[in-house]
Amino acid sequence: MIQFQCDYNEGCHPAILQRLVETNMQQTVGYGYDRYCQEACALICKACNAPDADVHFLVGGTQANTTVISSILRPHQGVIAAESGHINVHETGAIEHTGHKVITLPTSNGKICASDMAKYLRAFYAQDEPEHMVQPGMVYISFPTELGTLYSKHEIADIQSVCKQYALPLFIDGARLGYGLCSPECDLTLCDLATLCDVFYIGGTKVGALFGEAVVIMNKSLTKDFRYFIKQQGGMLAKGRLLGIQFSQLFTDDLYLKISRHAIDMAMLIKASLIEKGYSFFVDSPTNQQFPILPNELLKKISRDFLLSSWESVDDNHTAVRICTSWGTKPEAVQALIDALPNLKMM
Amino acid sequence: MIQFQCDYNEGCHPAILQRLVETNMQQTVGYGYDRYCQEACALICKACNAPDADVHFLVGGTQANTTVISSILRPHQGVIAAESGHINVHETGAIEHTGHKVITLPTSNGKICASDMAKYLRAFYAQDEPEHMVQPGMVYISFPTELGTLYSKHEIADIQSVCKQYALPLFIDGARLGYGLCSPECDLTLCDLATLCDVFYIGGTKVGALFGEAVVIMNKSLTKDFRYFIKQQGGMLAKGRLLGIQFSQLFTDDLYLKISRHAIDMAMLIKASLIEKGYSFFVDSPTNQQFPILPNELLKKISRDFLLSSWESVDDNHTAVRICTSWGTKPEAVQALIDALPNLKMM
Amino acid sequence: MIQFQCDYNEGCHPAILQRLVETNMQQTVGYGYDRYCQEACALICKACNAPDADVHFLVGGTQANTTVISSILRPHQGVIAAESGHINVHETGAIEHTGHKVITLPTSNGKICASDMAKYLRAFYAQDEPEHMVQPGMVYISFPTELGTLYSKHEIADIQSVCKQYALPLFIDGARLGYGLCSPECDLTLCDLATLCDVFYIGGTKVGALFGEAVVIMNKSLTKDFRYFIKQQGGMLAKGRLLGIQFSQLFTDDLYLKISRHAIDMAMLIKASLIEKGYSFFVDSPTNQQFPILPNELLKKISRDFLLSSWESVDDNHTAVRICTSWGTKPEAVQALIDALPNLKMM
Amino acid sequence: MIQFQCDYNEGCHPAILQRLVETNMQQTVGYGYDRYCQEACALICKACNAPDADVHFLVGGTQANTTVISSILRPHQGVIAAESGHINVHETGAIEHTGHKVITLPTSNGKICASDMAKYLRAFYAQDEPEHMVQPGMVYISFPTELGTLYSKHEIADIQSVCKQYALPLFIDGARLGYGLCSPECDLTLCDLATLCDVFYIGGTKVGALFGEAVVIMNKSLTKDFRYFIKQQGGMLAKGRLLGIQFSQLFTDDLYLKISRHAIDMAMLIKASLIEKGYSFFVDSPTNQQFPILPNELLKKISRDFLLSSWESVDDNHTAVRICTSWGTKPEAVQALIDALPNLKMM
Repeated sequence: MIQFQCDYNEGCHPAILQRLVETNMQQTVGYGYDRYCQEACALICKACNAPDADVHFLVGGTQANTTVISSILRPHQGVIAAESGHINVHETGAIEHTGHKVITLPTSNGKICASDMAKYLRAFYAQDEPEHMVQPGMVYISFPTELGTLYSKHEIADIQSVCKQYALPLFIDGARLGYGLCSPECDLTLCDLATLCDVFYIGGTKVGALFGEAVVIMNKSLTKDFRYFIKQQGGMLAKGRLLGIQFSQLFTDDLYLKISRHAIDMAMLIKASLIEKGYSFFVDSPTNQQFPILPNELLKKISRDFLLSSWESVDDNHTAVRICTSWGTKPEAVQALIDALPNLKMM
Repeated sequence: MIQFQCDYNEGCHPAILQRLVETNMQQTVGYGYDRYCQEACALICKACNAPDADVHFLVGGTQANTTVISSILRPHQGVIAAESGHINVHETGAIEHTGHKVITLPTSNGKICASDMAKYLRAFYAQDEPEHMVQPGMVYISFPTELGTLYSKHEIADIQSVCKQYALPLFIDGARLGYGLCSPECDLTLCDLATLCDVFYIGGTKVGALFGEAVVIMNKSLTKDFRYFIKQQGGMLAKGRLLGIQFSQLFTDDLYLKISRHAIDMAMLIKASLIEKGYSFFVDSPTNQQFPILPNELLKKISRDFLLSSWESVDDNHTAVRICTSWGTKPEAVQALIDALPNLKMM
Repeated sequence: MIQFQCDYNEGCHPAILQRLVETNMQQTVGYGYDRYCQEACALICKACNAPDADVHFLVGGTQANTTVISSILRPHQGVIAAESGHINVHETGAIEHTGHKVITLPTSNGKICASDMAKYLRAFYAQDEPEHMVQPGMVYISFPTELGTLYSKHEIADIQSVCKQYALPLFIDGARLGYGLCSPECDLTLCDLATLCDVFYIGGTKVGALFGEAVVIMNKSLTKDFRYFIKQQGGMLAKGRLLGIQFSQLFTDDLYLKISRHAIDMAMLIKASLIEKGYSFFVDSPTNQQFPILPNELLKKISRDFLLSSWESVDDNHTAVRICTSWGTKPEAVQALIDALPNLKMM
Repeated sequence: MIQFQCDYNEGCHPAILQRLVETNMQQTVGYGYDRYCQEACALICKACNAPDADVHFLVGGTQANTTVISSILRPHQGVIAAESGHINVHETGAIEHTGHKVITLPTSNGKICASDMAKYLRAFYAQDEPEHMVQPGMVYISFPTELGTLYSKHEIADIQSVCKQYALPLFIDGARLGYGLCSPECDLTLCDLATLCDVFYIGGTKVGALFGEAVVIMNKSLTKDFRYFIKQQGGMLAKGRLLGIQFSQLFTDDLYLKISRHAIDMAMLIKASLIEKGYSFFVDSPTNQQFPILPNELLKKISRDFLLSSWESVDDNHTAVRICTSWGTKPEAVQALIDALPNLKMM
């Protein structure tokens, strides 16, 4: 069974594992104060062209989202997000568990737009007594989104501009950041992204690491006591070095982008083949997640050899599926998948 | 600098790392549904002689404590713990963050006793209107305790008996479980421990793993929807296999106990030497944490070569320190420490 | 200025105030254990034909909703509600503040329907790994709804039936219960309502009392430790007698329904006049809240003498307003309002 | 049965009830924006000599404490309080329910002292990695305390000084404020108190009102969005006028202090008689709560006619009881109690 159902099917990039082996019996201090964490911080700050950024390493995405968001909001505030945002759908209410509402904006492609945000905010503050409603306290977007789509530089800048008008910190969830930055349709760099928000995270779990997300806080006013929040959320890894070593390796010799590019190359091969063979798509994604619509018969047949993720039933006879590539996807697996997909035009 | 300040200074046992390397490029499904997690569960159930136990793997101790406790308590309930309990002191209020009070009982040695518990509970329910106070909803103890001490089998059985009388689930924090089970003063086995409580966890982070704690739920009524809680707390590792592989290895060929025994052997060498040289102790610990009292002058001097943990100022001239050994402690490091500690009787 | 903007503009029904005066200097025990609370409980149980119901008196609606809902849900669960539900819109995230997501179903008239609920629940449990999402744990509906509409007996029975299938307690918010029960379109009685849900509350604040809501728990399994929850939520009134006296009076000689009927009579006069004069409505409400659509010019003019509540901008020239009547609405105020509203057909 | 077990046995001062009757059918806007609330705010600001203070009216004490404290603390912070503080003992964990630890300091008389606080804070910040513990975020004291004792002006000033050093807001719970201010041993005025803290509340429930507490925020930085917090906590009374009317009356013609003085006069009569008759006290209280120690036999006998509150078992044969007076205590009730208490010296 070849797996394409998600982007965390393998362990980690071999260079990372090698480094873990080499350093294994060294003694380091705990909780992220070790030299590897320091090294990784420095490398990330450099890659972001942000020498003063505050970098923290967390184990997973839900943890990163919850820690960042609950550190920013006051109790009566909520976070604005797309209806399809990961925090709204797939984190078992972790944000609500910390006491905050996810204030959702409608979306068809996983993105929110500045004008919808502005409209919502204007209406909120136009009320005589807004205190009967949850106050918007920050904005969350994903890059790429949960549907594989990307914001353009201009679109994020517009969102940022509305955020500034209402003093709302902007947080970018970069669980698949590498796969966004390496997309052929991406018009921004990591350095650009860093200047376009108050805080973001660089996903490791889905991009070459065993696990780990690097939270980068650009806005100094959000850094105070952040380590308390990590600890309270159960996110402070005793052997913090494990995160330092991994991110240090990912940000040496451009490894993070190199392996991200591989995932995109693999995804684009699949996408091009699907288009050529006449498949339509649930959403047009330029990143490592592809959402083709398959006839149910075909899905059933292909599922004997390939693990795909059923995304949504489109009609009685068709299902949108998610096909993910990653840093670890083998070209021969991609070829096998392509070979297994018939040309719909000829059916 | 040789480090004795904690028991998570090194990476992991080489056999575990070896297994991670061997399995690295295999594809598995995520979130703990992979074959390695299944394998590890089976091995742990067998080791506990509890074929029906429900086993879940979490990344760290604070996460394990918070997830277990908040899954059991109703909102108006609190957890009874020793004043010195980890959840009360060193988890940045993670329990309170989930809405619950830690109801503390006084202790001098890190343990609570059944009679204090019973007295507290009797008084609580003797009130006319107890609803003005937090209702005790479960009991938390650590084995070994944060001060290295151990409950006897009889002591835990007495606590369990009071718990049953008041329908309070008993949870045992086993962050250092191996170091307790292998202590010369321990009179119970892993199988015994499993029958003495409703839920406990087997610590991996401090006992040979890179990270990871195995929560073992013995009481079937506590298992419902536990995976929701793990996810909500940000504790569901995408690559769950990493935990499965580690615990599978730890519970193969008795590795967990073998490496724990080594830590105890090392600790006992240090303890014996300290006693012989006339040191007194903050608390008498039969496990891998030793708490000798050092003259401040000596502490300052020895701190040039050894990293110890300052525990508490005993008087103006003396400090209790914590010296930890672990699975990874080298005999030559122990010898070096012993050599560096002068004979107090001769000073 | 004559006020129609809400249904809590006056103090309380004079008979209640009279009773407060008469009993003022009597000594009673606190926190709801007094004889007046007992008396009120008995009267309410009788009115509901539910001798074993568990009745608790709270001060306000948000408090009642939060206390009931947070007493029922486990941490990973959410409450299903209409998008327009009071708990989702106008309680400043009080439900989320206790850690729970409000799972919304779309609605055009303030009601949810059993088939939408069933569809949502089927899809939820059809997932392979639902633990990544908030688990539905109960259902909340309002009777009447926030838009003045009413569920028929059959509609609630259908909702209850789906609830039972999925073991979800059904909670009915009766902040304006009297105004629902006395509507000409209501096809159920208080006794019916009590059998159609697990817990509901009888609104006092908007229906004749100074303040107060009577929570009636029909499902015995939900009563355990409820007083702890009241206290923890800050809802346990020291002088509980104030609530007992008020509800005792409201449920003596059918006062609750008598004064509700008055409010409905007043509302129907306004509604009939509005229809006759050619006004259209934002929603067709058979209860004490009416939502006519007014030309903005007219709204501006009429607002010199009458306080209405602007509900929603319908288009550039029209606004839906809310007009509320209550137990305290004076016929001459209604006449004045009617007189002030021009006949649109003649304009 | 004559009740002395608490200070909320009666309704409210007749002048307040009279005002409620007079204004009952007036129409006012809701949620505290009415003219009576404005009037009461102005009167309180004047009484506090604090023209810019921000005054909010809440229904009860637990609500006031929870709302104020949770509005101030960030999630990783706790509130310092005496072990015997109301928030630590008798609010069913309402503070923990909002996510915060109550950090307790030991006390024998209900008070904390500046030097204990300073010692705790020094030790906290002397740690290398304080982020593993709950950060102290504010200080809570009660005036009078739960044991009836009073801080001197100097003692509060010392606490305030430590607070300022560590940037900790100081909050004074004044549930029985009047009974403190009118004590013969009180050396400060309401105006003094206002300058000695960042926020406090003036208790109405126990001092003449039907219910209600007036939160006075002196520190401007704590006022932002406070109404959101009130609403979220379920504390925003729809008919806010009820609170405005009551406090307006209490702060007209010094009523608040006049009726407080009466309670103190009554308490001092009882205290003097008890002393004369040879009773000892659990604590020496100069306010309306007296804690004499009674032989159990006597307690049993006297309990046929008087309701006292059992406070704590002192030894096998003696119990400390609480006797409360209030604005509503009748001189003849006091005389009856005095007459019923035998002279211990003669037994």
